[in-house]
Amino acid sequence: MKLELPRHTERFGSVRIHDIQRVVLLDSAGEGIEVEASVCSIPRSKIQEIERKMAIIIPVKDERLKVIEGVISAIPSECLIIVVSNSKRGKVDRFKMERDMIEQHVHYARRAIWAIHQKDHGVSKAFKEVGYPELLDDNGVIRDGKAEGMIIGMLLAKAAGKEYVGFIDADNYIPGAVHEYVKIYGAAFHLSQSPYAMVRISWAYKPKILEGSLYFSKWGRVSAVTNRYLNKLIASFTGFETEVVKTGNSGEHAMTIRLAEILDYKPRFAIEPYEIVNILEQFGGIVEPKYDEPMEAGVEIFQIETRNPHFHEEKGDQHLKDMLCDALSAIMSSSICPESLKKELQIELLKEGLQPRDNDRTIPSFAHVDAKLFLDLLVEYNAIHMFGYKR
Amino acid sequence: MKLELPRHTERFGSVRIHDIQRVVLLDSAGEGIEVEASVCSIPRSKIQEIERKMAIIIPVKDERLKVIEGVISAIPSECLIIVVSNSKRGKVDRFKMERDMIEQHVHYARRAIWAIHQKDHGVSKAFKEVGYPELLDDNGVIRDGKAEGMIIGMLLAKAAGKEYVGFIDADNYIPGAVHEYVKIYGAAFHLSQSPYAMVRISWAYKPKILEGSLYFSKWGRVSAVTNRYLNKLIASFTGFETEVVKTGNSGEHAMTIRLAEILDYKPRFAIEPYEIVNILEQFGGIVEPKYDEPMEAGVEIFQIETRNPHFHEEKGDQHLKDMLCDALSAIMSSSICPESLKKELQIELLKEGLQPRDNDRTIPSFAHVDAKLFLDLLVEYNAIHMFGYKR
Repeated sequence: MKLELPRHTERFGSVRIHDIQRVVLLDSAGEGIEVEASVCSIPRSKIQEIERKMAIIIPVKDERLKVIEGVISAIPSECLIIVVSNSKRGKVDRFKMERDMIEQHVHYARRAIWAIHQKDHGVSKAFKEVGYPELLDDNGVIRDGKAEGMIIGMLLAKAAGKEYVGFIDADNYIPGAVHEYVKIYGAAFHLSQSPYAMVRISWAYKPKILEGSLYFSKWGRVSAVTNRYLNKLIASFTGFETEVVKTGNSGEHAMTIRLAEILDYKPRFAIEPYEIVNILEQFGGIVEPKYDEPMEAGVEIFQIETRNPHFHEEKGDQHLKDMLCDALSAIMSSSICPESLKKELQIELLKEGLQPRDNDRTIPSFAHVDAKLFLDLLVEYNAIHMFGYKR
Repeated sequence: MKLELPRHTERFGSVRIHDIQRVVLLDSAGEGIEVEASVCSIPRSKIQEIERKMAIIIPVKDERLKVIEGVISAIPSECLIIVVSNSKRGKVDRFKMERDMIEQHVHYARRAIWAIHQKDHGVSKAFKEVGYPELLDDNGVIRDGKAEGMIIGMLLAKAAGKEYVGFIDADNYIPGAVHEYVKIYGAAFHLSQSPYAMVRISWAYKPKILEGSLYFSKWGRVSAVTNRYLNKLIASFTGFETEVVKTGNSGEHAMTIRLAEILDYKPRFAIEPYEIVNILEQFGGIVEPKYDEPMEAGVEIFQIETRNPHFHEEKGDQHLKDMLCDALSAIMSSSICPESLKKELQIELLKEGLQPRDNDRTIPSFAHVDAKLFLDLLVEYNAIHMFGYKR
């Protein structure tokens, strides 16, 4: 793979946020990194080394089986796939259908896939026993929400001994795009100079259907607003306006486990933008840091623009409003958000007819959780389905 | 890459046509081919070995630059890319724009791309001098048509010393799909047991816009009809009905140069279906063969179904009618087409309000052409643009 070098890097305490890097070539020869004036070449063998240490988490919620199967078939065989499902389990047990599909895929593909259902009682029991009850509601069941599913997946990736964890949405129509995301994760981690790194995907285009034909729009409206306020948050400290953040709502992203386990999270659609906010909170040098090592090593955020457009299921206006509300509320509720910016955010939300969610929970990091014990408990309670030939 | 094994192979003289093989995994580890009961695994290194010996030809005709650039960026860097353009060259010289785009891409990507314009006087001059005037019209200029462009590309691939040649259409919106096509070419050639092999792509789905949303249809109507009659042609000799041919109109296909140079071609949209007809004519054992070696080694046709759907520019009803007319006329005009099938084809064409093109030219094979001399002449006449670092 060949990537542009970032033209600009914003520094904020120990945090480095690299500006967008475009993919120049999806797949290129060459052993040994060549860095030229503006492009770097990442050898395939290096990307594959990372893939062997990476788990890919696919949060699933009632997506069509054929689409999920396409996503799975595009993920390189070295990656452990962790499917965290929150699909309906009524008379038609969709999770059973998903497992059947996975079992058939694994039979032919001979690779490792783990599948777990978010609402399984064994999962909540295991969470209580390892002392991480923050994902449970008042009835002791895991809450609905993609964020909760993502955290279950990250804990399993850690338990599997993986060093990297990447997320791929289950509703992607283009297996080739999924394949590109995973290659990008590998390439960026190989470029990273810190064990605390994050890669966020920026889509080249997000095609829409306009008057019966395809129109390739560059930015979603929600993303544009979220990015603007994340950039304002940065500017409020550096004193310089910036446009560096371009992936505030990026569902497709990846982290080193060492970074993932020390971040705090927000529920629902706030999870992706809040990751950036929390990185600024913890490592931006504004408040006293909790961890020394990442302060010294630095925390790196890569933003990579794909070659592939992003075709996914359209989820409608309410979904967009929810995303916007969650994202802006997460910025507003941050301890490092200045009063003036809070006011601006409030006005923005009002303009959209939205109320800030100012009492949203924060899900604390899982650094203290014994992930291997968590996995052992899941196995004991029959709450995890392990397909394929390695554990 | 992991591919299903073909469940069925149709034999016809020295020709073997394998039934559809689905892609199980886009990208998989594993050194050494493992063949299991129903799946074979092709190591990445073996695919890359083929790519180094492969030229990818992109016939271009006024497609949007951004789309062409996406296609180019998805082709592995080892492949020589040959862009054969027939774009407009008026006040706005689109071929100049295409070259500019290629030059910029090559500057960053450091790979080899050749570009040539079909209507360049140097090209027709070179054709006359190497004794292959069949592509020229009465005024001595190369005819319009994708077939002519494809043949120019194949000659250049041969001149470059390549062993394989693959075609990719320039109007593909999904770079990830293009990448899959090239990997499929490499994987299938590696599986082939003959130096006379062809790989044809079958699309998983061809999405259409229906009432404002995407509908994933399996077969184009034209393909269904073309395939039906190609299968009838086979059945008329074997005496057994068959459905083995599923890629009659496949624009995305690849051949070994040794096969490509001994085939005769038909102009326009007949080129793809006629390749199959001509293979049956030459190597089906019905008429006296012209070449002994492929009769002994066998000629293999692979048909591989992609994981990616195929999103391309919609070209309208007239385009579909032309495709159908060209394809059915090519089958009808074959020396091995029995009278009864000719009648059926005539009725089918009439039903569609079409007239058979019964006096279509055949473009003879280029086995006798001195490809290196052809290239030398193009260089001398400044009719070829070579970008990148190797010739």
